[in-house]
Amino acid sequence: MAEPAPTAAPQDPAVAPAAAPAAGEEGAVSKKGAKKAEAKAKKEAEKARKAAEQAAKQAAAGGANSEDLAKDNYGEIKHTTRLSSENVHLREITEAHLGKTIKVRAWIQNARMQGAKMAFVELREEGNWTIQGVVGASPEGTPVSRQMVKYIGALKLESFVMVEAVVQKPLEPVKSTKVSNFELHLTKLYLVATAPEMLGLSLAPASRAVGRLDEEEVKEEGVEGLSITDTPVASLAVHLNNPAMHKRAPVSQAIADIRIAVEDLFCEYLRARRFKRFHPPALIGAASEGGANVFSLPYFGQNAYLAQSPQFYKQFEIAGGRKRVFCVGPVFRAENSNTPRHMTEFTGLDLEMEIDEHYHEVLHMLEGVLLHIFRGLAKDYSEEIELVRTVYPSDEFLLPEPGKEVRLTFAEGQKLLREEGPEEYRNVSDDEDMSTPQEKALGALIREKYKTDFYVLDKFPVEARPFYALPDPENPKVTNAYDFFMRGQEILSGGQRVHLPHELEATIRSKGLDPNQPGIKEYVDVFRSVGVPPHGGGGIGLDRVVAWYLNLPSVHLVCDYPRTPKRLAP
Amino acid sequence: MAEPAPTAAPQDPAVAPAAAPAAGEEGAVSKKGAKKAEAKAKKEAEKARKAAEQAAKQAAAGGANSEDLAKDNYGEIKHTTRLSSENVHLREITEAHLGKTIKVRAWIQNARMQGAKMAFVELREEGNWTIQGVVGASPEGTPVSRQMVKYIGALKLESFVMVEAVVQKPLEPVKSTKVSNFELHLTKLYLVATAPEMLGLSLAPASRAVGRLDEEEVKEEGVEGLSITDTPVASLAVHLNNPAMHKRAPVSQAIADIRIAVEDLFCEYLRARRFKRFHPPALIGAASEGGANVFSLPYFGQNAYLAQSPQFYKQFEIAGGRKRVFCVGPVFRAENSNTPRHMTEFTGLDLEMEIDEHYHEVLHMLEGVLLHIFRGLAKDYSEEIELVRTVYPSDEFLLPEPGKEVRLTFAEGQKLLREEGPEEYRNVSDDEDMSTPQEKALGALIREKYKTDFYVLDKFPVEARPFYALPDPENPKVTNAYDFFMRGQEILSGGQRVHLPHELEATIRSKGLDPNQPGIKEYVDVFRSVGVPPHGGGGIGLDRVVAWYLNLPSVHLVCDYPRTPKRLAP
Repeated sequence: MAEPAPTAAPQDPAVAPAAAPAAGEEGAVSKKGAKKAEAKAKKEAEKARKAAEQAAKQAAAGGANSEDLAKDNYGEIKHTTRLSSENVHLREITEAHLGKTIKVRAWIQNARMQGAKMAFVELREEGNWTIQGVVGASPEGTPVSRQMVKYIGALKLESFVMVEAVVQKPLEPVKSTKVSNFELHLTKLYLVATAPEMLGLSLAPASRAVGRLDEEEVKEEGVEGLSITDTPVASLAVHLNNPAMHKRAPVSQAIADIRIAVEDLFCEYLRARRFKRFHPPALIGAASEGGANVFSLPYFGQNAYLAQSPQFYKQFEIAGGRKRVFCVGPVFRAENSNTPRHMTEFTGLDLEMEIDEHYHEVLHMLEGVLLHIFRGLAKDYSEEIELVRTVYPSDEFLLPEPGKEVRLTFAEGQKLLREEGPEEYRNVSDDEDMSTPQEKALGALIREKYKTDFYVLDKFPVEARPFYALPDPENPKVTNAYDFFMRGQEILSGGQRVHLPHELEATIRSKGLDPNQPGIKEYVDVFRSVGVPPHGGGGIGLDRVVAWYLNLPSVHLVCDYPRTPKRLAP
Repeated sequence: MAEPAPTAAPQDPAVAPAAAPAAGEEGAVSKKGAKKAEAKAKKEAEKARKAAEQAAKQAAAGGANSEDLAKDNYGEIKHTTRLSSENVHLREITEAHLGKTIKVRAWIQNARMQGAKMAFVELREEGNWTIQGVVGASPEGTPVSRQMVKYIGALKLESFVMVEAVVQKPLEPVKSTKVSNFELHLTKLYLVATAPEMLGLSLAPASRAVGRLDEEEVKEEGVEGLSITDTPVASLAVHLNNPAMHKRAPVSQAIADIRIAVEDLFCEYLRARRFKRFHPPALIGAASEGGANVFSLPYFGQNAYLAQSPQFYKQFEIAGGRKRVFCVGPVFRAENSNTPRHMTEFTGLDLEMEIDEHYHEVLHMLEGVLLHIFRGLAKDYSEEIELVRTVYPSDEFLLPEPGKEVRLTFAEGQKLLREEGPEEYRNVSDDEDMSTPQEKALGALIREKYKTDFYVLDKFPVEARPFYALPDPENPKVTNAYDFFMRGQEILSGGQRVHLPHELEATIRSKGLDPNQPGIKEYVDVFRSVGVPPHGGGGIGLDRVVAWYLNLPSVHLVCDYPRTPKRLAP
């Protein structure tokens, strides 16, 4: 019987776009290294051939019957099944493992027969770590039967298996897998959990850019200029309705890892500056910020509401002497907005701090934490960013040079738009809030002029801000409040808050509200109850930061379980 | 005019219980150190006296009128007010600051006149950092007037001020403040935000143990055996209705800091073990776990529900190939339970992980993370724990010796109760869940027998667990599921989950539910859609861990903004 020669399986063109760059990096070996590897592989192959010969002799001598000698080495796992070999993750395999028997748990990314006596599988683990597995009848002294090979070659894609295998060198680096310099010669394989015959979304389209962004369930579309069979794409709805497969795609894993990094970098920066975490409530007793766009629910004979922001509670923490606080958690907007920027529940990164002398202390802190995030991503997540770019192309996210951060006033932004922006913005006013297209146009102007995708618009007009925004004491038409932008899209709102109760009563009245109405009274009461120092802060939309940094077409590709007016599941 | 001699203000007995231990620690100076300090203080005082003399001479020479020479040095702050002196936090003051002019922002914890020409204030900053401030007419060459002294002596408690002051050595350490070896000779004081005449809750009762735990608004009660005037205590309701003052109390700050530490230690331990954070949704499309105790709300023409746990979503992450995940966030229970253990919204610390061979991998991970938390608290938060103990006394939280963790099966626990517990538990059954008093009785038995307040009950009966708990393959009457306890009170539920769709359908049916009913179908579909590896996890109640570790009377003292059937505000 021929032993399975270490061979590279043909690359699956469907998975290639996402898997290729990673495999390319791993596969880059020097000529010298390649020669050495080849020599070693030949030696190993010779050794294996001899072992197989001996096994065949032993079998003949012992008069083994021609039934399934390998029947205990494969099949559905039992709860008593144990393998004593070392458990190794694919990322951990090194030259030291060559010739050794290891144990691996992984998904079947691909499985196919090569003739009747050999099967190839692609095993995947921990996101996008993949390796080639080979199984041939009776190699290396361990019984492997035709039945076993057939079983393995017919495994359903995305099933989970436990295998025992000998680590070998392939004759040439395997191009289709991230681990390209080693392959696994399978000696045992147990099916831990099978996938169904047909996947609702297979890995190839899950690993590509989504098609339609709306809730239309389009399973396979062609990419522009290509036929459907070349490169099927699934709509966002299909992705989200198949959460396991959507998440298993390397691009989704990379986006999720970048999202974690953004949150961790946010917390790390603030903790180092004596900010203290707290947890604002989601359930609140009154629709605090005016009553629009708030979810309401029955609550033991009264009504409860879902918090639209942790605003009031961040301020209560300052009143409570916590000086600098931050929180990370869900906020809710009952807004019937079906856009790639909106969700009804999203993760807010919020901070609030005492101001010593000027509200720009807060602005600089927010700028600092975001720059820390951007620099941290560029430094430690280049591999993930590159992987995402193979699926969702993007220009580099331009940062200002240190000390040259771009901070325009709202009025300066409007002036720039009037003077250098598109025709339709010739008459924009300094007193009215910007529209989204206006913001994008300004973002393009600023990128051109200042070479940055990240900037601040300060001093928003009073009309465009809520009652808790402090009016500029030197120009009561504007506030000490700002928005931050990435690629022309808002990611943060913040500013200095009114901290004196009589001033707060005045700004509340100026918005047509009553300082003693339910929800607002409890808020103002806190400022009436003690002396509260000047303070300010801001709220960052986590998913927007990730989406606009990576230039993704929708925040719904970032959020772990996006919620929209039309989507509450899974 | 006499200069203000460095003097210790009489200790306020009301605040002493909480402030004393910290002050005691700081105040512990050697005899030699004290002598040195005294000499230095005398020298400083002499220097100051000379400066005052000179200032008086200058004033006389310049023919200054007898009006308010100091009028620009005190009063309400203007937005243009700036002080150029160095901004120093009270915790940062060292010998190097002696004789120097610094700027401090702080709360007025106490203010009183000493005769007509001198006033004492106690300033508080950053939780429980306090210092004595002294102001006397015309010291040290800076104009201080009688009017200014009077203004300062009459400041409302808990107002926020900005002061400029010279750091001096008091003649003897100040006992009533945490900073006991320095005092501040005020030269300027600006009122940033005044407190009202009457506080809804003053710092003394805010710093003591709460009285009644129910929602009764009892402002001042006597402590058992003492009259009300000696030691007023406020009910929990008064505390929570006065959030700023409740939070300003050193004991509240310490509890909040310990809570942050528990969360951070949880995340730190898991991150180091390749767990990845994710955010489960709060809004879900169906009452997933049977429909009892779930909040429901109208959602764009359909119904939404608030998640009772991240259970399903943790499992989706495992199905999505994330291997090990954790999350920290709010979970909701629409349960009309008015006890010190219950809240309608609480912060859950959750994890889920693939199981390689045995579900005790998960149990040991959970044990590991909790022991990491307990050891981390003991190591780095002894000061905070001691401070809490001065208000809420507690026995040391006993931990098992490493390698001697107590893990009983549920049946073993019941047996212990039957054989060694109180009379009423002689007939407890191995098939029925424990009641809370039963759990507490068992906790007392285990503390006595094994000298630990932390232990695990494993193998809960099938009847006591939800459908996703995996039955023990060798004894289908029990599950691979466990609870963890602290001082006899449950803080964690967890176990191995059913990961095969046909087994899941069977356990769902055995609970009288339909695997295809809304909410459950979407869950089972994920296991039908791909192969999902064996996995398990657990959910920890953050507030309970803190409350039971510190032996607090209620989780409502731990949560930042507790929500109960009767409380939705502030």
